[in-house]
Amino acid sequence: MPNPIILGTVALDSVETPFGKHRNILGGSASYAAFAASFFAKPGIVSIVGTDFPEEHLDLLAAKHINLAGIQKRGASFRWEGVYEYTMHEANTTHLILGSLIDFEPKLPLEYQQGKYVFLANIDPEMQLQVIEQLVEPKLTLLDTRDLWIKTKPDALKKAIRKVDILLLNDAEARQLFETPNLVKAAQEALKMGVQGVIIKKGEHGALLFTEGKHFNAPGYPLEMIKDPTGCGDAFGGALLGYLAKTGDISEKNLRKAIVYGSALASFNAEDFSLERMKKLTWNDIEKRVHEFRTMREF
Amino acid sequence: MPNPIILGTVALDSVETPFGKHRNILGGSASYAAFAASFFAKPGIVSIVGTDFPEEHLDLLAAKHINLAGIQKRGASFRWEGVYEYTMHEANTTHLILGSLIDFEPKLPLEYQQGKYVFLANIDPEMQLQVIEQLVEPKLTLLDTRDLWIKTKPDALKKAIRKVDILLLNDAEARQLFETPNLVKAAQEALKMGVQGVIIKKGEHGALLFTEGKHFNAPGYPLEMIKDPTGCGDAFGGALLGYLAKTGDISEKNLRKAIVYGSALASFNAEDFSLERMKKLTWNDIEKRVHEFRTMREF
Repeated sequence: MPNPIILGTVALDSVETPFGKHRNILGGSASYAAFAASFFAKPGIVSIVGTDFPEEHLDLLAAKHINLAGIQKRGASFRWEGVYEYTMHEANTTHLILGSLIDFEPKLPLEYQQGKYVFLANIDPEMQLQVIEQLVEPKLTLLDTRDLWIKTKPDALKKAIRKVDILLLNDAEARQLFETPNLVKAAQEALKMGVQGVIIKKGEHGALLFTEGKHFNAPGYPLEMIKDPTGCGDAFGGALLGYLAKTGDISEKNLRKAIVYGSALASFNAEDFSLERMKKLTWNDIEKRVHEFRTMREF
Repeated sequence: MPNPIILGTVALDSVETPFGKHRNILGGSASYAAFAASFFAKPGIVSIVGTDFPEEHLDLLAAKHINLAGIQKRGASFRWEGVYEYTMHEANTTHLILGSLIDFEPKLPLEYQQGKYVFLANIDPEMQLQVIEQLVEPKLTLLDTRDLWIKTKPDALKKAIRKVDILLLNDAEARQLFETPNLVKAAQEALKMGVQGVIIKKGEHGALLFTEGKHFNAPGYPLEMIKDPTGCGDAFGGALLGYLAKTGDISEKNLRKAIVYGSALASFNAEDFSLERMKKLTWNDIEKRVHEFRTMREF
């Protein structure tokens, strides 16, 4: 049984940052998340690609023992084109081709339905709901989203949030979804919706975890060179859930550790385009960075 | 001998935030910094006020055993009027009366000249330079600044930075002064100027300390209610230096602790207008919050 199960996009990205421009590179929330998760466990992807999707990209995922049985193949591939400006804080989408993603109906292979750890990465919330319905008895479900869905499908998104254990979103999205500039208030509103925990990603400023009566603050890694932030949030979520799946411990204490592993993978991911940095990553690199996260917090 | 010595403004503020509007309340960088420092040591202020400055404000500082011998009195008081909008991130200055601050020449009383710990809080960098020149043998000098001086007096500011031990500034100012969006690069540029350490204040996102080869990341406190952020950076610097003055230990390790005490005082300060929250603060409140800072970043 693949573990964790990861729903999201597998895409062809064209990305421009102050450090370069690359066309038709491997992207998509599920690609980043599954690759990051593969350092800890044997994830399976639920997604769709076009018949034009390069085999080499899928081979790269398969070589990391990522289960691809949940990837459908038809029509045209999902393509995203974006530009990051000077501050590298946010990408401006310059072009988008939905391709066969537009009427994608996620269908879990039998072996996926028993999945215990499930990451509903960034994708249409209606597709997230469809996956939730096919799960027999998940132990932990994590849902990520983005501004687009908050704006265009707030009802489906809220319905999905009410059915998961942990909500993951970035600071701007938390402010937008709960209509407050204060992240503590936003987190409290999320907890009122029934989730057990809320994780707010803040990019270079780290991440926050809010659970009932408890708060964890994970530092951002002091990166001198950010080449391409695409997929950092996905790598964060994938590594986090991979770590939980590996350890089988969903206590708040272990969730803190999982967040630090997520932060480590996200920080590596920003160091190069596409999955280039993660491709070269060793377990030793990860442990070394997690150790740095520890020492940079000590007082 | 007062310790630490704090140069900065003592002002009459008129502040509007989404939580209220208050006129002619006690403000100024030295007021906030000295009040915060007074929980740890017996600070002395170097500043100027007008003959119209309310005695009750000075009495409040004196009651906290803050030495006021370095405060000159003539002309009109420095007045600042600002409005914080919805996000509370930055104040828009709506009115400014410099008063006698315009030709203020800081003159250290004899007992101040031997000062060991010195906080050059936000004020004209030429005044900061004048104070540096009057110090006989300081043990640790900390310099804060703001966007206005980076823009209008970059040469004097850089000259002052080269003469101090630690540079304190917020993230926007660090990016502005060193012309890079990357805070790690900005910090490295600052270290190249000869300072021993750079502290970057990031408001709700905490604070960063960069020293040669080391990095410390202090979390932000998860405040649900921020009533007025005015003076938080000043309270941060004042408490930080007060803690160092109290402990007499300027090692990197102790600087980390000092930053957490600074963060604690800054977080309290945001909870009410002017010095209202700090006025009610007990040592027990401070220790409790520092303990929270510890637990919120354990993993």
